[in-house]
Amino acid sequence: MPLAEIITIGDEILIGQIIDTNSPWMATELNKIGISVTQITSISDQKEHILKALEEAEGRADIILVTGGLGPTKDDVTKKTMAEYFGSEKMVVHEPTLKIVRSFFERRDLPVTELNALQAEVPDNCEILLNENGTAPCMLFQKGNKVFISMPGVPFEMMLLMSNKVLPELTKRYHLPSIYHRTILTAGIGESFLADRIADIEDSLPDYIKLAYLPKLGMVRLRLSSAKNADAELIEEIEQFAGKIEERVAEYWVSNEDVAFEKAILDLMERNNLTLSLAESCTGGYLSHLFTQHSGSSSVFDGAAVVYSNKLKMSVLGVKSETLEQFGAVSEQTAKEMAEGALLNFETDFAVAITGIAGPGGGSEEKPVGTVCIAVANKNETLVKRFIFSNKRLQNIERSATAALFLLLTLLRKSQYN
Amino acid sequence: MPLAEIITIGDEILIGQIIDTNSPWMATELNKIGISVTQITSISDQKEHILKALEEAEGRADIILVTGGLGPTKDDVTKKTMAEYFGSEKMVVHEPTLKIVRSFFERRDLPVTELNALQAEVPDNCEILLNENGTAPCMLFQKGNKVFISMPGVPFEMMLLMSNKVLPELTKRYHLPSIYHRTILTAGIGESFLADRIADIEDSLPDYIKLAYLPKLGMVRLRLSSAKNADAELIEEIEQFAGKIEERVAEYWVSNEDVAFEKAILDLMERNNLTLSLAESCTGGYLSHLFTQHSGSSSVFDGAAVVYSNKLKMSVLGVKSETLEQFGAVSEQTAKEMAEGALLNFETDFAVAITGIAGPGGGSEEKPVGTVCIAVANKNETLVKRFIFSNKRLQNIERSATAALFLLLTLLRKSQYN
Repeated sequence: MPLAEIITIGDEILIGQIIDTNSPWMATELNKIGISVTQITSISDQKEHILKALEEAEGRADIILVTGGLGPTKDDVTKKTMAEYFGSEKMVVHEPTLKIVRSFFERRDLPVTELNALQAEVPDNCEILLNENGTAPCMLFQKGNKVFISMPGVPFEMMLLMSNKVLPELTKRYHLPSIYHRTILTAGIGESFLADRIADIEDSLPDYIKLAYLPKLGMVRLRLSSAKNADAELIEEIEQFAGKIEERVAEYWVSNEDVAFEKAILDLMERNNLTLSLAESCTGGYLSHLFTQHSGSSSVFDGAAVVYSNKLKMSVLGVKSETLEQFGAVSEQTAKEMAEGALLNFETDFAVAITGIAGPGGGSEEKPVGTVCIAVANKNETLVKRFIFSNKRLQNIERSATAALFLLLTLLRKSQYN
Repeated sequence: MPLAEIITIGDEILIGQIIDTNSPWMATELNKIGISVTQITSISDQKEHILKALEEAEGRADIILVTGGLGPTKDDVTKKTMAEYFGSEKMVVHEPTLKIVRSFFERRDLPVTELNALQAEVPDNCEILLNENGTAPCMLFQKGNKVFISMPGVPFEMMLLMSNKVLPELTKRYHLPSIYHRTILTAGIGESFLADRIADIEDSLPDYIKLAYLPKLGMVRLRLSSAKNADAELIEEIEQFAGKIEERVAEYWVSNEDVAFEKAILDLMERNNLTLSLAESCTGGYLSHLFTQHSGSSSVFDGAAVVYSNKLKMSVLGVKSETLEQFGAVSEQTAKEMAEGALLNFETDFAVAITGIAGPGGGSEEKPVGTVCIAVANKNETLVKRFIFSNKRLQNIERSATAALFLLLTLLRKSQYN
């Protein structure tokens, strides 16, 4: 099984300005096609440092993936350093890339500067995997039996290049085993409790089937993977184990696909021709964003009211001023009225409301930071639940959204939608 | 100026299961006290790999900070490998650590297992920086003039150890320069155009002042940094260059602080006691989320209507059905009515509206995917602008949000708010 290393070039990571989310994404994708990552290295964009990192990686891995260091400005030396490392004789213009650079600027009615045109220059001894979504080229160098691929660091460009060009290229070049992955998405149960509940099934797994727990706030993704080439027989065996686990965790089961929680719900609601609206206070639009980032969400999601102020809770959703006075904005009662108000005013089949104290300020003895009330309504009933999460704002926003999704799923299932 | 390297040990990062947020945090803190980070390396918890990483880091840096690989089950490998690398003679019990381990379990009414007690065993030739917030020891090894410090990977334990023990220890051991960073946040101009525009200023920078371009969709962050100890004179010099750049790019200038764009706007609006509401169609709550992720945003942000359906555009925001029929949901006219409707119905000082075709479906010859109309209104006027972005949904959402922020900033400045 070939080994890969990831090198990210650029000072932004080394000075702590940005968090490297590219490498874990790449590692996940490489793992899926049966390539293990042995090391991830972040270095500065200085020539000597790049040369040294390439040399060290070459000594350890078969595939070296480099991201970053390819922008148009002067602080980028990656391309020239690559040329030196791989003994290129000269830089040449890569016409298809130049065409993309030109059309990129023309579409925006901007002139193509000399600096921009330079992006299409590449070392003469590399192969180009055409970057159709940006102006920086993706270069592949072969050195002995090692493959080096350099990509731009802009996440969406890198992701499209990896998915459309790099992973297919690697699959073609290496004799990769076909790894079968089967996901079981669960929510509403912690990792250790889940592990206890399925301990006997886990113990009975043969050594060529691996089970991984991939926890995220409020959710656990279980993944069964083949540790060898997956033929029809092995796939059947994995599916049988998956079925056993799903039966055991039925009340926490969300999906058998490796999709985001909200996407599983969108799919379920679309299958049943249902519409949804939201009323968000402490999550401030985050849950709406989760739904609407998925294309096609408009067939289910009609809209949302993000109501930070009490005034808007009343005017947009019809929450009663007595309710706010008597129970407060963060209360089961307010959550219930918000959900029922959204259901009524936005005329959807289901509505979800979230109101809470995200923090870090605003807590009290009775309602500490992290207190969140969630309601889910359809025309027959409204479910309401109170939670106390943490004292971290972003974490509270994310956990609230996940808890709301789980409560929505509960009401959908209770209403016989599957 | 001493150089540091960070090594993180553990498979979770290499399989993409967790994102390494420890290293950027450490890098930021090290930078603040004048220690540059030359490399960040993530490796597996295998002995040979750890030995190799320590050796390579020792060849490059003065200070090597290691995190992870110290839990009760994995303890063994990292600690024993360290002992081997530094030529320890034996493992000894560190009594203060043992006391902490015992009290940790006693407080939870749990037995202290042999495995747990082993956590207090450390190589005989290291110095212990007492970890008062966990059971794994923090070990300091001196080798020649190099310092190695190994910490647990649990973020809050690592952060407390860094702040309370490691950084003070390093400050004591090294004569540290003070590094000065100055950020200039710009929006609405591409990296290469920005570079062209300030080329002469950049060329005139002395070699002890560095300029970095840090682009993000629709924005570029410029950063001037001192490459040596920043005394009052050098800070003054950097500020003078910053001033020159800011003057040159005045119409694209957002902030002189290293903050998120929306945070710069929240601060500006809060200083001027202004309130804001949003009407989001294609961005689907994303812009609301950007604002509300910041604590204290409720003093400016009152709420938003996320209106995917035409029905809600009319009922919640008062967009006229004739406007939708004549010009379509994605049009300057609809954007204008959405913004003015939010201003009126939500009673805020400013309102922003975004309507567009995020894609991948829904485009036409006349209005291709990526067409986005943005309007910003206050009681005196409404600015409207049409954009054509890309055919990538998430990118269109992000670019729309950035463009909306820039148009909002434009109207704020036009209205004499600064």
